[in-house]
Amino acid sequence: MEKSTDAPDVQEFPSIRCVAVNAHAKETRNSDEAKNGKAMGFVLVHAGAGYHSESKAKEYKHACKRACQKAVEKLKSGALAVDAVTAALIVLEDSTFTNAGTGSNLNLSGDIECDASIMDGKSLHFGAIGALSGIKNPVLVANRLLSEAQKGKLSAGRIPPCFLVGRGAYQWALDHGIPPCSLDKMTTKFSLSAYRRNKRKMELAEKVEMDVIQTKRRRQSSSHENDTGSLDTVGAIVVDNEGNVAAAVSSGGLAMKHPGRVGQAAHYGCGCWAENAGNLNPYSTAVSTSGCGEHLVRTMLARECSIALQSEDAHLALLETMQNKFISSSFLASEECVLGGVIVLRTCRCAVQSEASQNIQALLVEFLWSHTTESMCVGYMSAQDGKAKTHISRLPPGAVAGQSLAIEGGVCRLGTSVN
Amino acid sequence: MEKSTDAPDVQEFPSIRCVAVNAHAKETRNSDEAKNGKAMGFVLVHAGAGYHSESKAKEYKHACKRACQKAVEKLKSGALAVDAVTAALIVLEDSTFTNAGTGSNLNLSGDIECDASIMDGKSLHFGAIGALSGIKNPVLVANRLLSEAQKGKLSAGRIPPCFLVGRGAYQWALDHGIPPCSLDKMTTKFSLSAYRRNKRKMELAEKVEMDVIQTKRRRQSSSHENDTGSLDTVGAIVVDNEGNVAAAVSSGGLAMKHPGRVGQAAHYGCGCWAENAGNLNPYSTAVSTSGCGEHLVRTMLARECSIALQSEDAHLALLETMQNKFISSSFLASEECVLGGVIVLRTCRCAVQSEASQNIQALLVEFLWSHTTESMCVGYMSAQDGKAKTHISRLPPGAVAGQSLAIEGGVCRLGTSVN
Repeated sequence: MEKSTDAPDVQEFPSIRCVAVNAHAKETRNSDEAKNGKAMGFVLVHAGAGYHSESKAKEYKHACKRACQKAVEKLKSGALAVDAVTAALIVLEDSTFTNAGTGSNLNLSGDIECDASIMDGKSLHFGAIGALSGIKNPVLVANRLLSEAQKGKLSAGRIPPCFLVGRGAYQWALDHGIPPCSLDKMTTKFSLSAYRRNKRKMELAEKVEMDVIQTKRRRQSSSHENDTGSLDTVGAIVVDNEGNVAAAVSSGGLAMKHPGRVGQAAHYGCGCWAENAGNLNPYSTAVSTSGCGEHLVRTMLARECSIALQSEDAHLALLETMQNKFISSSFLASEECVLGGVIVLRTCRCAVQSEASQNIQALLVEFLWSHTTESMCVGYMSAQDGKAKTHISRLPPGAVAGQSLAIEGGVCRLGTSVN
Repeated sequence: MEKSTDAPDVQEFPSIRCVAVNAHAKETRNSDEAKNGKAMGFVLVHAGAGYHSESKAKEYKHACKRACQKAVEKLKSGALAVDAVTAALIVLEDSTFTNAGTGSNLNLSGDIECDASIMDGKSLHFGAIGALSGIKNPVLVANRLLSEAQKGKLSAGRIPPCFLVGRGAYQWALDHGIPPCSLDKMTTKFSLSAYRRNKRKMELAEKVEMDVIQTKRRRQSSSHENDTGSLDTVGAIVVDNEGNVAAAVSSGGLAMKHPGRVGQAAHYGCGCWAENAGNLNPYSTAVSTSGCGEHLVRTMLARECSIALQSEDAHLALLETMQNKFISSSFLASEECVLGGVIVLRTCRCAVQSEASQNIQALLVEFLWSHTTESMCVGYMSAQDGKAKTHISRLPPGAVAGQSLAIEGGVCRLGTSVN
């Protein structure tokens, strides 16, 4: 019988180069959970790639921290990755500082319409909702779609849906016992004042454009003008006790978006990706993205990252993907600024020898984040950690958002004795 | 100045092996359009992968024929691929025999909700709508989203949407001059009677299941029971005079689907794909899919086909993709029957010598269709052809739908004299 005796060995590498993975297990702690083999698992969350002001840094970090803790609680109670990732997302959606769930950006009509999706690396099932109003935790609906689809066909052999939008998604949620939530409960003082400010600004911009500027010139307005709202979609990726991975993402979408607009958070392959190791893939991978939805959709960034992470060097693979398949993507050739960020992890099992000469089967978790936006707020925690680490990653001084990137990460080893 | 002196050389290969491309141009016809260099281009359409009864074969073929003719008319008038493909789709949507636009399957509530998308291989822009009611030609809205996005940013630097759903999509369409269309005008006698029949069947199935069968057993009901409606999504792929490719797809979705359900026809990378040749891609490729939306989404079949088509042998590439990335996909491991079909084309330029020893720059178009459904109706035509060819491809006798496939195709050479 396998028994975990190994605590996580987390190494941070804030610079360009990924540190080599140390394959020697260190027994840094022996919690009860570790001893009984139940405390495996790791979570990495993001509170968005966008701009995180210093004044609110504490709040963003706090949300990430609580999200990690919630996911770890779930993992400790034996939950699978897909449920732990949902638990993390609920915390992030409930934070009034993130653009997801409560506090989401308002659309052109002053309404909240959320996108969210979730993917289970074990079953490879996917659930997504788009432009959903009136539900406090959109990720719960995505999770439920996923679990319902896993049950197989509906009556009369009908295939269950994996993606529902708008009013139909709302009704489906209610029919499955998820309670409604009024708009005013999901709107915050901040989101409402941002909406009013944006609306005035838009009206002014349109007036000026109509009065003075030719359509052609108007269309060439720089993307730097797009400060109508933050891009801080939230997300999480998890590996559980059994080594299964899962990923999720949730977003209120761009501020002042057209009603019905669906961004990357609901798009298969674009918002999140999770895939357990298989015959063709040596690594289990999980990815969650954030940023400008249209850029993330057209580059299918989540899946591209997942595919790249099967190569030898995770750090190099992510760096090249962000450079070649995002910033310099031929799909975004007409875009001056390509705005987005990702969190990724990959895991593989490997046998190592501990200092006490025990044979240990370790689960190596390499985790990274990268963004082309000004900043990205992340948090991470393993099931053996006492508390989460949080961090606001920023582009280096002088770097231009949308044209350059930051990349950071770490390695965590979760060990299980096989003696 | 370039002048086209070469008429198309279409070869059909109904068997397993793709015929070798004959690189010698044959001057089989010299139409006026060919002479003035304006008659280049080729279109391949499908009226769906599903089941096409012999009794309605004529109608399906007729719709495909007219769709091809309309696209070719556009090409002859100098339209780009993206507009020619839209013209083909409009004909297919307007046919009362296809599950797209007028005559679409009704959903659980007896409403029509359409999905459609379009991709331009030149700009790599994409436009999609999901769960759209009240618009006669959903592809027109997708096309308009694409062309609006190509114009650049909206006022105040807002990024234009590439995907709109539901009520918001409807309002956007009206705001952009696309007229509304009432449900009763889009409903046909056939779709309504199918709805009533399906509804009775479903109610009966649910009653029986509730009375007698345990949930677990109900969930295991075979997919063969899913004869609630045809799966005949429509689509088209085009290469224009300049060698640009475009692809589009449109669908009413599964019969008796949940309101708000969005299928592959609106999913980036799943319903259609078009990508001009570039630095990394020797071939321009275009793909349009049909079948069970959830299967096509989770395998991202359109993009997978496009990637595979960059390898040497198009026929082999498609065959392997359909076998390994669709029927045997790890993403559909739990599915007994994997139902779908694709039409694909790829083009490359090559210099050849005609019988009259003229130097000719030819555009070679290799086109194929493949399906795991009982049948798939296709039509194709080059701009120099007098009329379209149509065909209902069927699985060979004894082959099991969802587990085996048919693959056919041809080669067409469009030549331009460079003397």
